[in-house]
Amino acid sequence: MPTVVTFGEIMMRLTAPGRQRFSQATGLQITYGGGEANVAAALAQMGMSAAHATVFPDNDLGRAAGAFFQKAGVDTSCFVYKGGRLGLYFMEVGDGMRPSRIVYDRYESAFAHLDPAAFDWENILSGARWFHWTGITPAVSASAAQACADAIAAARKLGITVSTDVNYRRVLWKYGKQASEVMPDLVRNCDVAVCTEGDAADIFGIRSSGFVEMAGKMKDAFPNLREIIATRREVLSASHNRLTGLCFDGKEYRESPTFELNPIVDRIGGGDAFVAGYIYGSLHYDDPAKTLAFATAASALKHTIEGDYNLVGAQEVEQVMGGDVSGRLLR
Amino acid sequence: MPTVVTFGEIMMRLTAPGRQRFSQATGLQITYGGGEANVAAALAQMGMSAAHATVFPDNDLGRAAGAFFQKAGVDTSCFVYKGGRLGLYFMEVGDGMRPSRIVYDRYESAFAHLDPAAFDWENILSGARWFHWTGITPAVSASAAQACADAIAAARKLGITVSTDVNYRRVLWKYGKQASEVMPDLVRNCDVAVCTEGDAADIFGIRSSGFVEMAGKMKDAFPNLREIIATRREVLSASHNRLTGLCFDGKEYRESPTFELNPIVDRIGGGDAFVAGYIYGSLHYDDPAKTLAFATAASALKHTIEGDYNLVGAQEVEQVMGGDVSGRLLR
Amino acid sequence: MPTVVTFGEIMMRLTAPGRQRFSQATGLQITYGGGEANVAAALAQMGMSAAHATVFPDNDLGRAAGAFFQKAGVDTSCFVYKGGRLGLYFMEVGDGMRPSRIVYDRYESAFAHLDPAAFDWENILSGARWFHWTGITPAVSASAAQACADAIAAARKLGITVSTDVNYRRVLWKYGKQASEVMPDLVRNCDVAVCTEGDAADIFGIRSSGFVEMAGKMKDAFPNLREIIATRREVLSASHNRLTGLCFDGKEYRESPTFELNPIVDRIGGGDAFVAGYIYGSLHYDDPAKTLAFATAASALKHTIEGDYNLVGAQEVEQVMGGDVSGRLLR
Amino acid sequence: MPTVVTFGEIMMRLTAPGRQRFSQATGLQITYGGGEANVAAALAQMGMSAAHATVFPDNDLGRAAGAFFQKAGVDTSCFVYKGGRLGLYFMEVGDGMRPSRIVYDRYESAFAHLDPAAFDWENILSGARWFHWTGITPAVSASAAQACADAIAAARKLGITVSTDVNYRRVLWKYGKQASEVMPDLVRNCDVAVCTEGDAADIFGIRSSGFVEMAGKMKDAFPNLREIIATRREVLSASHNRLTGLCFDGKEYRESPTFELNPIVDRIGGGDAFVAGYIYGSLHYDDPAKTLAFATAASALKHTIEGDYNLVGAQEVEQVMGGDVSGRLLR
Amino acid sequence: MPTVVTFGEIMMRLTAPGRQRFSQATGLQITYGGGEANVAAALAQMGMSAAHATVFPDNDLGRAAGAFFQKAGVDTSCFVYKGGRLGLYFMEVGDGMRPSRIVYDRYESAFAHLDPAAFDWENILSGARWFHWTGITPAVSASAAQACADAIAAARKLGITVSTDVNYRRVLWKYGKQASEVMPDLVRNCDVAVCTEGDAADIFGIRSSGFVEMAGKMKDAFPNLREIIATRREVLSASHNRLTGLCFDGKEYRESPTFELNPIVDRIGGGDAFVAGYIYGSLHYDDPAKTLAFATAASALKHTIEGDYNLVGAQEVEQVMGGDVSGRLLR
Amino acid sequence: MPTVVTFGEIMMRLTAPGRQRFSQATGLQITYGGGEANVAAALAQMGMSAAHATVFPDNDLGRAAGAFFQKAGVDTSCFVYKGGRLGLYFMEVGDGMRPSRIVYDRYESAFAHLDPAAFDWENILSGARWFHWTGITPAVSASAAQACADAIAAARKLGITVSTDVNYRRVLWKYGKQASEVMPDLVRNCDVAVCTEGDAADIFGIRSSGFVEMAGKMKDAFPNLREIIATRREVLSASHNRLTGLCFDGKEYRESPTFELNPIVDRIGGGDAFVAGYIYGSLHYDDPAKTLAFATAASALKHTIEGDYNLVGAQEVEQVMGGDVSGRLLR
Repeated sequence: MPTVVTFGEIMMRLTAPGRQRFSQATGLQITYGGGEANVAAALAQMGMSAAHATVFPDNDLGRAAGAFFQKAGVDTSCFVYKGGRLGLYFMEVGDGMRPSRIVYDRYESAFAHLDPAAFDWENILSGARWFHWTGITPAVSASAAQACADAIAAARKLGITVSTDVNYRRVLWKYGKQASEVMPDLVRNCDVAVCTEGDAADIFGIRSSGFVEMAGKMKDAFPNLREIIATRREVLSASHNRLTGLCFDGKEYRESPTFELNPIVDRIGGGDAFVAGYIYGSLHYDDPAKTLAFATAASALKHTIEGDYNLVGAQEVEQVMGGDVSGRLLR
Repeated sequence: MPTVVTFGEIMMRLTAPGRQRFSQATGLQITYGGGEANVAAALAQMGMSAAHATVFPDNDLGRAAGAFFQKAGVDTSCFVYKGGRLGLYFMEVGDGMRPSRIVYDRYESAFAHLDPAAFDWENILSGARWFHWTGITPAVSASAAQACADAIAAARKLGITVSTDVNYRRVLWKYGKQASEVMPDLVRNCDVAVCTEGDAADIFGIRSSGFVEMAGKMKDAFPNLREIIATRREVLSASHNRLTGLCFDGKEYRESPTFELNPIVDRIGGGDAFVAGYIYGSLHYDDPAKTLAFATAASALKHTIEGDYNLVGAQEVEQVMGGDVSGRLLR
Repeated sequence: MPTVVTFGEIMMRLTAPGRQRFSQATGLQITYGGGEANVAAALAQMGMSAAHATVFPDNDLGRAAGAFFQKAGVDTSCFVYKGGRLGLYFMEVGDGMRPSRIVYDRYESAFAHLDPAAFDWENILSGARWFHWTGITPAVSASAAQACADAIAAARKLGITVSTDVNYRRVLWKYGKQASEVMPDLVRNCDVAVCTEGDAADIFGIRSSGFVEMAGKMKDAFPNLREIIATRREVLSASHNRLTGLCFDGKEYRESPTFELNPIVDRIGGGDAFVAGYIYGSLHYDDPAKTLAFATAASALKHTIEGDYNLVGAQEVEQVMGGDVSGRLLR
Repeated sequence: MPTVVTFGEIMMRLTAPGRQRFSQATGLQITYGGGEANVAAALAQMGMSAAHATVFPDNDLGRAAGAFFQKAGVDTSCFVYKGGRLGLYFMEVGDGMRPSRIVYDRYESAFAHLDPAAFDWENILSGARWFHWTGITPAVSASAAQACADAIAAARKLGITVSTDVNYRRVLWKYGKQASEVMPDLVRNCDVAVCTEGDAADIFGIRSSGFVEMAGKMKDAFPNLREIIATRREVLSASHNRLTGLCFDGKEYRESPTFELNPIVDRIGGGDAFVAGYIYGSLHYDDPAKTLAFATAASALKHTIEGDYNLVGAQEVEQVMGGDVSGRLLR
Repeated sequence: MPTVVTFGEIMMRLTAPGRQRFSQATGLQITYGGGEANVAAALAQMGMSAAHATVFPDNDLGRAAGAFFQKAGVDTSCFVYKGGRLGLYFMEVGDGMRPSRIVYDRYESAFAHLDPAAFDWENILSGARWFHWTGITPAVSASAAQACADAIAAARKLGITVSTDVNYRRVLWKYGKQASEVMPDLVRNCDVAVCTEGDAADIFGIRSSGFVEMAGKMKDAFPNLREIIATRREVLSASHNRLTGLCFDGKEYRESPTFELNPIVDRIGGGDAFVAGYIYGSLHYDDPAKTLAFATAASALKHTIEGDYNLVGAQEVEQVMGGDVSGRLLR
Repeated sequence: MPTVVTFGEIMMRLTAPGRQRFSQATGLQITYGGGEANVAAALAQMGMSAAHATVFPDNDLGRAAGAFFQKAGVDTSCFVYKGGRLGLYFMEVGDGMRPSRIVYDRYESAFAHLDPAAFDWENILSGARWFHWTGITPAVSASAAQACADAIAAARKLGITVSTDVNYRRVLWKYGKQASEVMPDLVRNCDVAVCTEGDAADIFGIRSSGFVEMAGKMKDAFPNLREIIATRREVLSASHNRLTGLCFDGKEYRESPTFELNPIVDRIGGGDAFVAGYIYGSLHYDDPAKTLAFATAASALKHTIEGDYNLVGAQEVEQVMGGDVSGRLLR
């Protein structure tokens, strides 16, 4: 029985090598990821038992994506292989003043066409301590939103902690519902939310002049939320960012130390690594400040890792959390 | 003004390197191709002026596909960049007794959603001598079928030779029409058709016990058809085939010499190379047997070329057509 | 509970790319394999539940090897991470008249230093139907031989079928015992043995003038053996072999059809694929001839697969077994 | 009819991968470039109609170079394929305190042996608004210098703006003439010159203590010059430069904002991107300061692009010109 | 003191990867070779002491070429680094009926501009037993022809065996002399000549209807020649040849066994490997038939080796010479 | 006769590409190195005559390692090929805050099993001016320690300068002796020692509060030591260090300028490059400050070079030593 369960779409990511632009590339590198599966994979790498639930097309590409997460140590017993196509995204990697660019190609995916009945959530979540979802899932289709709602309900019934990264992506909401119609009911039953000022405004209509004000209003709107968390990212260039973790628990506001991210190896999945670190910290430390520091250090380390998920051990995060960011050679 | 015009969808092909299976691949090689554009590109490589008409999504991937055919020397002034996604297909390459496998991912492409009014065929075809289309185009959507019909009508009006590769792909016909409902009206105004016994049965309900019988019945059904052509492929293994060109002009049946294809570098686009060779031969030789030999030699050579289109010069084809298949080093 | 359990060492294989000789290589390709784990992985790919037991060093390389077999779908709950080093082998790939060459570097591995008590065989084998080992395991160390004996004893106690590939490698027996001292007691309790005339002579002192004579003598020496099986490999060149499966059940001698292996993509693990196919066939068909054909077809297909284990589905093997060795493109 | 025409040699660039030194490289990456063709290609990428005139050898390498610029969207109808060899340059890429190194191998190229009569400049330039050449062309041979003079004369006759990058390379002037003998007559009929203090001294004997003084003296010497422009590059390391655009129009001296180039992906062609940006700006904005800022931003962005020419869109340059150098991920 | 000394130009070879045509390649693989240096390198790999004399440009490319032959074990103490450029040749690799193509770019090389006085042949050859040159060297320039004549004279004076591969390349003779004017005087003092019927006709005007007749006439024309040798190559396809060694000593005509070369990994340097094998055999066996068989087996094996020179040991050749062409895996 | 002789083990280094972690790598890049051989190779690149003595296994991997150093220009006449295995180390490359990691796999190597009698030191060192060894050699086995002692004794007898990098690696001392038992007798006869405060404490029990105090105590303990040298490395991140050279000659303490290492291409062998630079400087300059500056500049440059040894020329070091760290492009 896994300790943590996540739910969401997994896509194939096809990245142009080096600093090539799309039209220069004669090949693309493959990895697989998704905002929720990245959390499960990061937790598995840190030694936790983590399961992910998703739907893949029943073809060679879906199977290859599934095998990728098997390798990552994720419990894949809730992978459903059925119909459709595999969502894709194409990426070219910028540097310095040139941004990285992503072209999504994820519509009509097997996941978007999922049958909510394919997941027996009470069974899946039985024995787990944590369930995580993101705002991307209810955005892709009505049935995905339904499955998400079902999962949250089951988690609540079983007394499992529920976290969400509300993560607003305007372009995804295409099936006739708006985020503002769907998300509040889902967030209402969550314990922890990753949310930025922009997300709060876009999804919940909560205007604010800063994180703490926003977080306070979120807590007012969703009283079950114990904590609102986020990262603040200072973007100096495509290769150099600064990252700070933020947390408000209704009473206290905390900030993690700020980490220099320079050079950035792969920026994708930085937020998911933060969530995984937060879950790991919450379940291992009885110390909110340490949890926030661990989460932010995990996210910082992610920026040195190729691929979407955070392929580091808990000990590596603890070393960075402890202030050793020197990267001194380990023999 | 191009001498030859082709029309059809172009897809990105993503191929696993070497003999890797999909789940082993950590990268994919990019090429671009389409059954009709491959004909235009092969003709351009043989020094002819060839234009292709198609629709790409107006994004980085569509632009990259367009640039690929610019490099091939195709006249790309009829490329439309608008909406949608780029059709894709994934390929793993077999060897010996293990087949190559293709996973198509082409639905809802920008091409399928094309607006027939985007192409002013009389203008596009003005001054051309040949127009070529395939049975894949009317299969992908009603609007694509309409654009195909428009093009054929314009060609006929301008007195341009029209060829088609009827190429039946059952799985593509998903928009509510069957091939048998759409294709006859399109083929009716063509001068040349690539057609196998299987295609004739599947599309036109023409049963036969051999190529000549089928071709005769096709001529009866479509009196405008001057010639029915095809290749016969003996598949000894994924790496070793034998190829013969066939032609029936209503009176005479011709066979080209048979070419050993061993080893096969890339089998995709072999039929398109045959068509390109046939068009080249028809426009350069006043000799049907020579035209057939040239077409078949071109197709044979294609199997030694990486990618979808036949990157060889006319002189190279003529050397093979002339019987020199020794591949002796050229210093 | 896995249906099949295998036990043995897993090594990292480092292969020079293309046809490079060792001194030309500036990089090496990684795969992982072992004569027994390859069987488990092939069975997992064919949809069976298969577990492997082994010992890896508790370092990054051992973990990477473990993850490789997780990806292959093998049940890795019996992987022990403890001490030592990871066995390696280096390979350069020949072609035509130039042989492939292997340099082993496997001594003092974590597996060779295993503690037999680390494996609770009755628990591991509980619920399984088949246990497979090879003559390589008792060759590497006394403790590995002991673990092998323990596993066989437990399997016998639980009534599980036991198979072995006796696989004599003279150079491995370095810990003070000879194969002839150790192997008979292990083979005595097996139901199926892969054994060639050479192996029978080298290990058991059984001289013969052919497979059937040898197999008969083996049955006399080891009455529990129900079947002696093997493949006959005609080596025309490094790139072209012919393969036939052989089986003697004490009464009847069977030969499979002969498969042309041309070109050979990767010859390593051909024998392991034969064993996996034999186990699959035995557990799915009630037909020894079909089982032998499936096993040989599986081995034949393996020669088209990169890496040590047979990454093919049962349906693919059945197609070849059914006589379709044309490798015709699958769209 | 192209809006901008450029003229000059195109070479194959062969670059050692990563940070390898020449003796470590077992392969070289191919790109193609030339100081003038890079301008045409950059303009084509920014949506302008740009033609380039050059001579290639009539062999596979010349054809490949030609196809490269077709892909870039350059009008290649003035490419002449005749005789000789393709000029080459080899490059190893430095980093930090280690410089990149170039080994030129361009003598006796097809371009150097060009026949001036091969270019009908009045026809080529008909309808164009801008002609650009550099000091490299008259340096390679007398016939190239003659073709350059012919082109400038035709442009002047047609009333087309002429720009030059005077770009002094001492080692190139080997055919018996010195730059000081040839260049003044060519520059005399130009409207815009890229020129540094060093170039002015080396070519025209104009000594100065700074850009403005030099530019003033250049204007005095060449009254047709409307503007003298240049970039000032502060070289902190092979991976970190600072870049500022400079312009003097006889009355006013302008400086662009200074851009941090860190890390530098590919420094080659930075000056050509500046010229392309200057031409684009001149033809799109009626604002010299904006033109200079656009030119410098374009050059800055070039340093993030692999290859010799600036593969960016006008919108991307405008974003950087507008001050957004954050490289923030574009989804 | 080396046992064998060779003299001639070394070029950088730049090969398109896989089966790519030149215009498809985005990179080229580097190796270095020359018809004479390949002989020295092959002998060094077979354990002999072999020196090569040549001239490289004194730049990074020349040094890299020199280091390549240091790695091969060649005595490089006679490498001169001075002036000029490094000769190059570009190659695309065919397959099946498509030929491999070579584009030479070797004019004006440092070697062609060599100063004959740079080589003190009596010192270089002191203690050696064999000197080898080819007809390529006197073809590239008058000074190279002079150095060749000097070396032969010195060898003769020292009583050293001299061999030549007369190797006529019409396109190389560009400095005002014809082969027929230069070669006879050089061959006159040789002991062994590799010569085909075509070479004999083109260089010496010796017409013949077969190898033996030609060889007899060569012996008549050049009485010092002890043996005329050659290989007969049957070219079935770019990937499949058959090779037989031929030898005539004035009295006896011998043929080696015929070797199937299938598939061919790299055909370049097959003749040089034959010469190296012939020299090795002559110096190790007192048996002309065995020497011829060894030479032909060495050449056959070369076709399985990437690069220009024969990277195999004498034992590997002897195994093939002994009839084992099975390529059976060596563990 | 080489000017400098070094002695020690050479290992194959297998590095994961880019920033991949071990479990992500599907291939590994090969280089070869050793703390002493790196010194010889760097000196050879700087134009000095340098020999290295070592033992390799007599297999393909040992031969490949030997050829690697032949290419580097090292005199390899003292390479012994005998028995055992080749030591290996695996590396993954970190970036920013993530450290690079090394997994050693060097036990039971051919070098560790060397026979001290295999080296005739008086002959090997005859005519040399400098002998260098490191504390790694006596750590690997008693016989290696003995060979080291023999070499030092011979050098002393011949009046050759002896340098050592004491380089304490606790994990290596496994054969029953401690560093503190073995090293003092070896260092006693040395002229120069690279030693940090940590090394001095760990090996010699010399506690200190800084380099100068330690160096003074070292000189007291080992009166033959003329100079104690070291580098001080400030580790800001895996990609950014600062490096300063330190030297104490008993009277005077010197520091080199401090070099910014950013970005770091390959940090391995930085110390060996310092030693090579120190030897070069000592033998070329009569100026201790210049020698120290050259040594530190050489080490700084090494961080921009891929692989273990410093592939730069003396002139390149002198440019950096002279203060030009701009990395300005060299055409």
